[in-house]
Amino acid sequence: MSKLAVIALGGNAIIRGDERGTIQQQNKNSTDTFEHLTYLLKEGYNMVLTHGNGPQVGNILLRNDAGEEIYDIPQMPLDICVADSQGGMGYMLEKMLKNVLKCEGINKEIVTIITQVVVSKDDPAFSNYTKRVGKLYDKKRADALSANKGWVFKKSSKRKNAWRRVVPSPKPIAIMNEDIIKKLADSGIIVIAVGGGGVPVYYDDKGMLKALEAVIDKDAASSLLGSNIGADEFYLLTDVPYVYKNFGTDKQEILEFLTKAEINKLIKEKAFGEGNMLPKVKSALRFVENGGAKSVITDASNLENKKYGTRITLL
Amino acid sequence: MSKLAVIALGGNAIIRGDERGTIQQQNKNSTDTFEHLTYLLKEGYNMVLTHGNGPQVGNILLRNDAGEEIYDIPQMPLDICVADSQGGMGYMLEKMLKNVLKCEGINKEIVTIITQVVVSKDDPAFSNYTKRVGKLYDKKRADALSANKGWVFKKSSKRKNAWRRVVPSPKPIAIMNEDIIKKLADSGIIVIAVGGGGVPVYYDDKGMLKALEAVIDKDAASSLLGSNIGADEFYLLTDVPYVYKNFGTDKQEILEFLTKAEINKLIKEKAFGEGNMLPKVKSALRFVENGGAKSVITDASNLENKKYGTRITLL
Repeated sequence: MSKLAVIALGGNAIIRGDERGTIQQQNKNSTDTFEHLTYLLKEGYNMVLTHGNGPQVGNILLRNDAGEEIYDIPQMPLDICVADSQGGMGYMLEKMLKNVLKCEGINKEIVTIITQVVVSKDDPAFSNYTKRVGKLYDKKRADALSANKGWVFKKSSKRKNAWRRVVPSPKPIAIMNEDIIKKLADSGIIVIAVGGGGVPVYYDDKGMLKALEAVIDKDAASSLLGSNIGADEFYLLTDVPYVYKNFGTDKQEILEFLTKAEINKLIKEKAFGEGNMLPKVKSALRFVENGGAKSVITDASNLENKKYGTRITLL
Repeated sequence: MSKLAVIALGGNAIIRGDERGTIQQQNKNSTDTFEHLTYLLKEGYNMVLTHGNGPQVGNILLRNDAGEEIYDIPQMPLDICVADSQGGMGYMLEKMLKNVLKCEGINKEIVTIITQVVVSKDDPAFSNYTKRVGKLYDKKRADALSANKGWVFKKSSKRKNAWRRVVPSPKPIAIMNEDIIKKLADSGIIVIAVGGGGVPVYYDDKGMLKALEAVIDKDAASSLLGSNIGADEFYLLTDVPYVYKNFGTDKQEILEFLTKAEINKLIKEKAFGEGNMLPKVKSALRFVENGGAKSVITDASNLENKKYGTRITLL
């Protein structure tokens, strides 16, 4: 039986650094990334691709706001915006990957599954909103949106008299349709799923599925999906080849291997960037804790060169 | 083996008449529609759902325009907007149907597949743009967009000095991932696919998949999908219980059965609305021509009451 790999594409695999994020840029970056991944297919791996959606859903939220302002079009809630981004990005990734495979003479089907991810209404995230989304507002407009839509705002740390919407980032507890994703992937079809961490939903007291205004960390959702579908390997692709200790300081140190004990020590020392490397390291560790054989954090080109970046292990 | 039905939801199954299309309205209308469809599941049918996206993708296009105007966010091309709408609507439909099934005690999986539909670059539609999309512009802005983005405009028939973008509506010739859709549906999973007629793509001379600025008629794409996956029955749900001859005139006449010969005669007499009933009748006919057992045009409540609306037959 073929090995199954879950590969989580970071934001910069699709929109890089200061790019505006035109479709031409997104097409090119995705193609570059995929060219590094085909070796896994040539080695016979089955594959599930997941991806972030930060800049894309950010733009969708701004367009929502602008559409209401200019044309009085009703805004869609955050869950619909996330699902929109899964559709648009899934299609784009599917098409670009199909073309890369064609050039490499690899004949594989690719399918994008819109993915809901179940969270708990009692998640502590709902009493501590942390994730900043959408545009900057002045106080008056923020207060009005807060009153009209129940949105929660935090003061911007970067700009004076500017407020930004914050939403909770609850822990994923179940991936809808994971059995279908597993079946498709095990049959050799490349599956694109859990885009942007998945559309967050919960079950109410009557067992009804309800929407939530929240975002789920894509690495956490990808790790859970990987465990639940029995993936062998989990690759978290980002814009650096390794995890580093004291990243960006003159004490910066490459970490080629990271055990659970070392990770816990380094977390206590606050050695990882909170908004970036910390959730990756945690998700990578959780995958091996749940029985996965291999967790790796690296960039796409290192993955291909088999330097393999930072390998996270239990012992 | 269970019978397989393809059900194409018309726009009004989701946003009705003069509604603004808030998410609350879309949730409610979808739920109402689905409550009429559960009887098919109780009778043991397998099911593929397809849907229009007119108002939704229209709003996405307006938001794109507004987002560029206010925040200078790059606009996404039409194919990405269609794929976005497949994601957002697919998720919404999936969730509302899941809840209707829960209330009815029906335990079925539902999955949304982002669907590309292949068209021919040589389709005559590319020399006769017919489908109006997006907002009204004045001449100056239309000329600028025409020069910058290559958009084609036609003068509005409704408003003076107003121009609207037109795009081609080519014929669908292949549905990507139709084998996957068939396998899932035959295994009893409800599949949502071909949203908005599918994302139009074509293969260039090198066999590369390329995007197109076009829209595909959702009934034509649904009919083709139904034929290709060997569906037994094809239901085109709209806002009237029957197809009528001379609809809306005092000579209006219910058509309970329509044969191929009658359809061709009535098409010559221009008895069907060009933008609405004509493509439905043609798509329903094509399904039985391709070997499908049953094609019906009706509204959701008549479907449940088994009046079955207008049945299209070969003879």
